[in-house]
Amino acid sequence: MDILTRLQQFIDSDRLTTQADQLAVASRDESTLDPVSPLAVVWPRDSAEISRIIIECRETQTPVTTRGAGSALEGSTIPSRQGLVLDLSRWTNIIEFFTDDLQITVEPGIIYDHLNNKLKDEGLFFPPAPGGSGDIATIGGMVSTNASGIYSVKYGGTREYVLQLEIVTGTGEIMKIGSRATKRSSGYNLVDLIAGSEGTLAIITAITLRLAGLPEGSRQSAFIFRDNVSAARAVSEMARYGLDLAAVEFLDSAVVSALNKLNDYGLDESPCLFLEFHGPEEALKANEELAGSICAELGGKPLILADGQRPWEIRHYATDAIKHLKSGYDIIRNDVAFPISKLPEMVGFCHDEADKASLIIHTFGHVGMGLLHALILARRSDKTEWQHGIELSDKIIKRTIELGGTISGEHGIGLGHKNLFELEHGRAVQLMRQIKKQFDPDNILNPGKIFDM
Amino acid sequence: MDILTRLQQFIDSDRLTTQADQLAVASRDESTLDPVSPLAVVWPRDSAEISRIIIECRETQTPVTTRGAGSALEGSTIPSRQGLVLDLSRWTNIIEFFTDDLQITVEPGIIYDHLNNKLKDEGLFFPPAPGGSGDIATIGGMVSTNASGIYSVKYGGTREYVLQLEIVTGTGEIMKIGSRATKRSSGYNLVDLIAGSEGTLAIITAITLRLAGLPEGSRQSAFIFRDNVSAARAVSEMARYGLDLAAVEFLDSAVVSALNKLNDYGLDESPCLFLEFHGPEEALKANEELAGSICAELGGKPLILADGQRPWEIRHYATDAIKHLKSGYDIIRNDVAFPISKLPEMVGFCHDEADKASLIIHTFGHVGMGLLHALILARRSDKTEWQHGIELSDKIIKRTIELGGTISGEHGIGLGHKNLFELEHGRAVQLMRQIKKQFDPDNILNPGKIFDM
Repeated sequence: MDILTRLQQFIDSDRLTTQADQLAVASRDESTLDPVSPLAVVWPRDSAEISRIIIECRETQTPVTTRGAGSALEGSTIPSRQGLVLDLSRWTNIIEFFTDDLQITVEPGIIYDHLNNKLKDEGLFFPPAPGGSGDIATIGGMVSTNASGIYSVKYGGTREYVLQLEIVTGTGEIMKIGSRATKRSSGYNLVDLIAGSEGTLAIITAITLRLAGLPEGSRQSAFIFRDNVSAARAVSEMARYGLDLAAVEFLDSAVVSALNKLNDYGLDESPCLFLEFHGPEEALKANEELAGSICAELGGKPLILADGQRPWEIRHYATDAIKHLKSGYDIIRNDVAFPISKLPEMVGFCHDEADKASLIIHTFGHVGMGLLHALILARRSDKTEWQHGIELSDKIIKRTIELGGTISGEHGIGLGHKNLFELEHGRAVQLMRQIKKQFDPDNILNPGKIFDM
Repeated sequence: MDILTRLQQFIDSDRLTTQADQLAVASRDESTLDPVSPLAVVWPRDSAEISRIIIECRETQTPVTTRGAGSALEGSTIPSRQGLVLDLSRWTNIIEFFTDDLQITVEPGIIYDHLNNKLKDEGLFFPPAPGGSGDIATIGGMVSTNASGIYSVKYGGTREYVLQLEIVTGTGEIMKIGSRATKRSSGYNLVDLIAGSEGTLAIITAITLRLAGLPEGSRQSAFIFRDNVSAARAVSEMARYGLDLAAVEFLDSAVVSALNKLNDYGLDESPCLFLEFHGPEEALKANEELAGSICAELGGKPLILADGQRPWEIRHYATDAIKHLKSGYDIIRNDVAFPISKLPEMVGFCHDEADKASLIIHTFGHVGMGLLHALILARRSDKTEWQHGIELSDKIIKRTIELGGTISGEHGIGLGHKNLFELEHGRAVQLMRQIKKQFDPDNILNPGKIFDM
């Protein structure tokens, strides 16, 4: 019996489709990678049903890709040809709210902003804000890619918040891993192994997160600098002073220029840092003053904004500004992360290499964590230019690895960067393959993502 | 050829011993578990030599236990009979200091306090302070047990600071895992798998840590409460307010009483909380005031100390005070961690069950993370009493697991608590066994710790 016939035995027809328009939706993510149409899309009812689906898939050697919002940026949710897509975007419930413990158990399909809206009433929040996509990104997707965001410099990435998971492995076994204790030294850390594994080890069906108290207050400021080196040094100095930064974002002058073109902000077109502080009023003042004097020592000047403009509103439009800068152009993206001292060198490298290749590049990111997004603009219609764009992106990643960094700070490897995965991890890749086999002996869970078996 | 003859081929005689006094030192840790004498102790020279030792051990099926200070509390460093001990306590060098990145690469034998003394000049520190044993605990040991301590509520546990490791696996393969990027979404998190694995997956030969900036200032305060419930609620409320606590320690009234007996402090014998704040002066003031008002609302009053006494000096002597309370008694220890709201219930449970069993118990811990140490006093000479002590400890752990907690918050499982490991982790233990096999196919690395194969 083929996989479709098998699934039809126990899945209602309104939760299983092979309609072309639905397959098209499930065939892509937010990247510019080529879509791949799956065989069918299933909206499973519960973990037990997922377990049964996995067992059927294993028997028929059918690949399974789990999908939430499909807002992945590196192809992690692009399915395999003739594979199945498990769509968990309808799994949006809060399973249990442990308000006194500052913890919550949720289904993986709940959206980041929806969750935080519900937490607000209790004075709580889940901090790893995924940049501009909080209104679509699901918590399941964030766990799968170990997402982070603007507040990760203070609060950490998604992995730091995941306490317990219910998972279904590649053998269909339903399992709870982790516990509700916030600190643990009890055996191997399977939770942090699943977090960031992009659906290749198990399907996540329930997530217990720890939460943070909403800060008593917050304050934002922004500084412009003569050059990238000075801006980068300021970030490093702030860290050295033990300054309690909630966020620090870097935009190079090209991004600022793109923002001016998008919305006529009238900003000085210099590299800048956007800062945010969280805490009680007195602490905010003190931290802001310390940050101000560190920036001033490195030649930083307060960014002058028009009345009513808040720096973070401007930052929010960075990707949009780049996307709309030139019509007919698409974005070739990377998401490198490196030791913070390498920021000036890396920003310089990105621009120098882009100039050499006659390509347009913009760099920005959550630099407090050493994360830099280098967005290259190229035309897909111009095969040579597109190829040069990809080569430039690879060159940036290779330089990052040489400097002790990593291919991906927060987006994952997916299909987009698996060509360079072995360059970063060397012989450890073989161990990763062996670990995958223990969770998924037949390689049916999101096969071909991160690395090939 | 037996293992000793093999090792003598390439290890100088001053780095390989079978002398009884040296074997005796290597046969125990700081727990009250029975010592086990190894076959020999080796002080290896470098990773390449460790690799060769491992290959010889594998061929002769000789177990290998790696040892630093031997300050483990659950038998993680107690060797196997006829096994080898690899003593890394002479590996105390700083390999590379990346001051601009707030990172350092060290050998595993470097001692916590020594490291922090060297970091001080650069305005940096490695925060997960291991309570009273910072003067002996090695960084390698801290990574192996994912240790934490008084500052973990603000700064996190050891795992959160480990960026990159050089390891030697159970096949003798030398491998680098992780990178120097502080945030990563690049494949499976092998670093966090090794951290906390108590020497059962690989031997750690180099460690790259991220560091924190020394706080501009710090301030301590302490409050006494009517009962454990109120003290515990205060901790939970402080977390909910997003209060930036550097440390919050709980001592029950029995511990306070023991401290009075040790040093005649003249303290009020009520449960108390010791708080510490880090930051700029204005922030300290603001945070201290907020904490004070939260404690006051729950009936907490400032703890009155004699002139010149600092609350944390008192806290430092907690374990000593318990140890010296009754001569002829030893400590049966546990190290449970649970969701913070369970603190009042767990403290009550510990004391009720100790009363029923006519045993003396003291509870204290880093409660900001939900960590509670319940120390039971019993005489090893009185076999029934000792057995009752162990049963009480197991009962406390079982209750913790029922409440969503974990056997160990920071000490590890070792030999001490592996009897209850499957109760906590269920079917995930089988996956852990399979993972161990990928790193250590012949089960020669610290066999029998955490779980049996």
